[in-house]
Amino acid sequence: MRITEMHVTPIALGDPPLLNAAGLHAPYCLRTIVELRTDTGLHGLAEVPGSVAIDEALRGACDWIVGADPLNWHAVRERVRAHGAMETSVARGDKPWDRRTRVQLFSALDVACLDIAGKAFDVPVATLLGGVVRDRVPYSAYLFYKYEGAGGPLGFDVDAHALGWAAARQAAALDADGIVAQAQAMIAEFGFTSIKLKGGVFEPAQEVAAIRALRDAFGPDVPLRYDPNAVWSVDTGIHWGKELEGLLEYLEDPVRTQQGMAEVRRAVKLPLATNMCTTSFDDLPGSVATESEDIILTDHHFWGGLRASMELAAHCRTFGRGVSMHSNNHAGISLAAMTHLGAAMPNLSYALDTHYPWQWEEIVVGGRMKIEDGCVELPKGPGLGVELDRAALVRAHDAYIRCGLTERDDEPEMQKKVPGWKFQQTRW
Amino acid sequence: MRITEMHVTPIALGDPPLLNAAGLHAPYCLRTIVELRTDTGLHGLAEVPGSVAIDEALRGACDWIVGADPLNWHAVRERVRAHGAMETSVARGDKPWDRRTRVQLFSALDVACLDIAGKAFDVPVATLLGGVVRDRVPYSAYLFYKYEGAGGPLGFDVDAHALGWAAARQAAALDADGIVAQAQAMIAEFGFTSIKLKGGVFEPAQEVAAIRALRDAFGPDVPLRYDPNAVWSVDTGIHWGKELEGLLEYLEDPVRTQQGMAEVRRAVKLPLATNMCTTSFDDLPGSVATESEDIILTDHHFWGGLRASMELAAHCRTFGRGVSMHSNNHAGISLAAMTHLGAAMPNLSYALDTHYPWQWEEIVVGGRMKIEDGCVELPKGPGLGVELDRAALVRAHDAYIRCGLTERDDEPEMQKKVPGWKFQQTRW
Repeated sequence: MRITEMHVTPIALGDPPLLNAAGLHAPYCLRTIVELRTDTGLHGLAEVPGSVAIDEALRGACDWIVGADPLNWHAVRERVRAHGAMETSVARGDKPWDRRTRVQLFSALDVACLDIAGKAFDVPVATLLGGVVRDRVPYSAYLFYKYEGAGGPLGFDVDAHALGWAAARQAAALDADGIVAQAQAMIAEFGFTSIKLKGGVFEPAQEVAAIRALRDAFGPDVPLRYDPNAVWSVDTGIHWGKELEGLLEYLEDPVRTQQGMAEVRRAVKLPLATNMCTTSFDDLPGSVATESEDIILTDHHFWGGLRASMELAAHCRTFGRGVSMHSNNHAGISLAAMTHLGAAMPNLSYALDTHYPWQWEEIVVGGRMKIEDGCVELPKGPGLGVELDRAALVRAHDAYIRCGLTERDDEPEMQKKVPGWKFQQTRW
Repeated sequence: MRITEMHVTPIALGDPPLLNAAGLHAPYCLRTIVELRTDTGLHGLAEVPGSVAIDEALRGACDWIVGADPLNWHAVRERVRAHGAMETSVARGDKPWDRRTRVQLFSALDVACLDIAGKAFDVPVATLLGGVVRDRVPYSAYLFYKYEGAGGPLGFDVDAHALGWAAARQAAALDADGIVAQAQAMIAEFGFTSIKLKGGVFEPAQEVAAIRALRDAFGPDVPLRYDPNAVWSVDTGIHWGKELEGLLEYLEDPVRTQQGMAEVRRAVKLPLATNMCTTSFDDLPGSVATESEDIILTDHHFWGGLRASMELAAHCRTFGRGVSMHSNNHAGISLAAMTHLGAAMPNLSYALDTHYPWQWEEIVVGGRMKIEDGCVELPKGPGLGVELDRAALVRAHDAYIRCGLTERDDEPEMQKKVPGWKFQQTRW
């Protein structure tokens, strides 16, 4: 089998004004859809974070990916390696999201080739990752501080039952009460049984108060996670880490660097998780040497694909790390890929993160995928089990052209609300 | 798809009187053939080292493996885990070979399930391991000190061209000249381009003289490996390690334990390899902490299968270890499995070990598999690409019944030649 075509389509999907350590989400998030076609009439899909740089990396690959055997991942990967060096984790940058482009090229090709292989063999992608260990994959309620607005027109693509969440998604959440109300609406709609709060927005005392309010509202049986996105100093991490002992399932990236994380970890009785200090295979020796975290958040977009994420899970098993999963805004192709990975990973220790409830558009056939009882059911059908809704894709690509965004940058968006606001690597 | 039958057939294959640290090979080596059959009419093959204990472990599994989906490896593995604890590497014992039984159960099921999957999907097993990176897999010339005799009847199953090796296989090799002559005959027949000497038989000075003689005979372009099977003390390892600097591609297991290996490694400028001190995923943290070796020899029979061996290779990539492959006596099903693994492993850094030239019988259709230019070509056809020769299997099973051996034990065999000989963990 040979790859005969590779198509790269940038899209923009509406996104609410979510606050985070780097500023404020723009009204659109960018994603890029990759489609491979084969001489046997099959096609494979993938979705990665969008930016002009990533799109350039993907488009630059089209010429030398055409002709490759999609069933031979090692050979496809070698073609990528022959066209440039692997990036180290330094290239990810200092923001909550990952700016590397080549890992996303690996990821896109890995996922699309697995989609093709699954269709060729008539099995789900999860089977090709070693087999389904759970066919309903648990996700967590991902809470954000946010300004009022967006969240899609009320009732757009949502049935009457969902109006509660569609309304709540529009509401502001700028304090503990707002966060609890957001959690209640999101859980009423999707049935999540664990909660994550994206922090790093307000001073620690205010955010820790929201964690306490969540604990009071939901009780000790609903695990809570909290992610200040590494904008704390080590002293702050130790101080507030101690305050959070007994309250959290895990504390994610309180501080920067493996050394900083290790220092906090030695001082605080709380599992630490990361998707910022241990973010590539090159970082694993340092993780082992410094004992920088208890849990590594994989993300197949940033670890180089689903197969690479399974390799990461094997390393986590060997070195006693738990595995959870990171998310950025994404559409249904990524949700399907994340669900296949979650379905196949024996040592997935925690519910996965997903931004999915925050969006209202979709580019896959059938529209918005269902989250019920906090879980996404493994899609039926071979491969990823999702197909492109071409009309929706055209709409989302038109939105990309119209919106004029070229990369994610939350700082200028924040400056519209708070003039002069600047991202700081370490804020508190 | 469901597994409907599991068959376990112990066999014995003729084996020459090869010397090693634990004594002398018996006239037969034991292997066990595992066959899974499915409700779709497919079957999958595997081969593991044979012993009554291993056969019992395999037969004990039949009841709860029937009904499993062979395409869902994670579910098959869970069935095994539900019926007993995983063994740690302590259970491997102190001999050059591995006495664990459960890893071999995992291995047999992994290989047989992959054979089924390859047939179901019409692709080679190497494709299911990530894809073929080389379709001719290099093996090394595996030299043994030996007594005269065995090696099969002259001309048995060998064409005229091979008579040279068939005769040399019968000859004694008890000194440097004998080892060089053995290497010349084996290389003339099979075209190997690297050489391994199994040591631990004579005092180090005598064996190192054989290494020097091989270097003189073959020159610096033919890499040499040497394996005293951990019967040296650390002092001996350091002394003779220094003597071997510049002569070896690697020195395998000069001494016991990760700590001992690390001590030798710090003192000697020579890459160290192991299949005795780092032999399971549980050992990898210790390997990283002590820096006990440069190269890990995988063996899919002892690491829990082909997929587990690929995971080991990923760990080796992450932690800067090279990968090579260990061998015991084996037949064509194992040779095919080893070749698929070698074909799919991107970071295979060295030619694989194989005892295959030492044997003369075969149980797969087509008889003895070809080794040309030191390489085995990836078998054609889906799955492992080998099928059982049922008549040959019956002969080999009859030989098992007749020979009366129940496990490998080289000590009593050695005592027939050297009365009172005893295995010693540390001999020099």
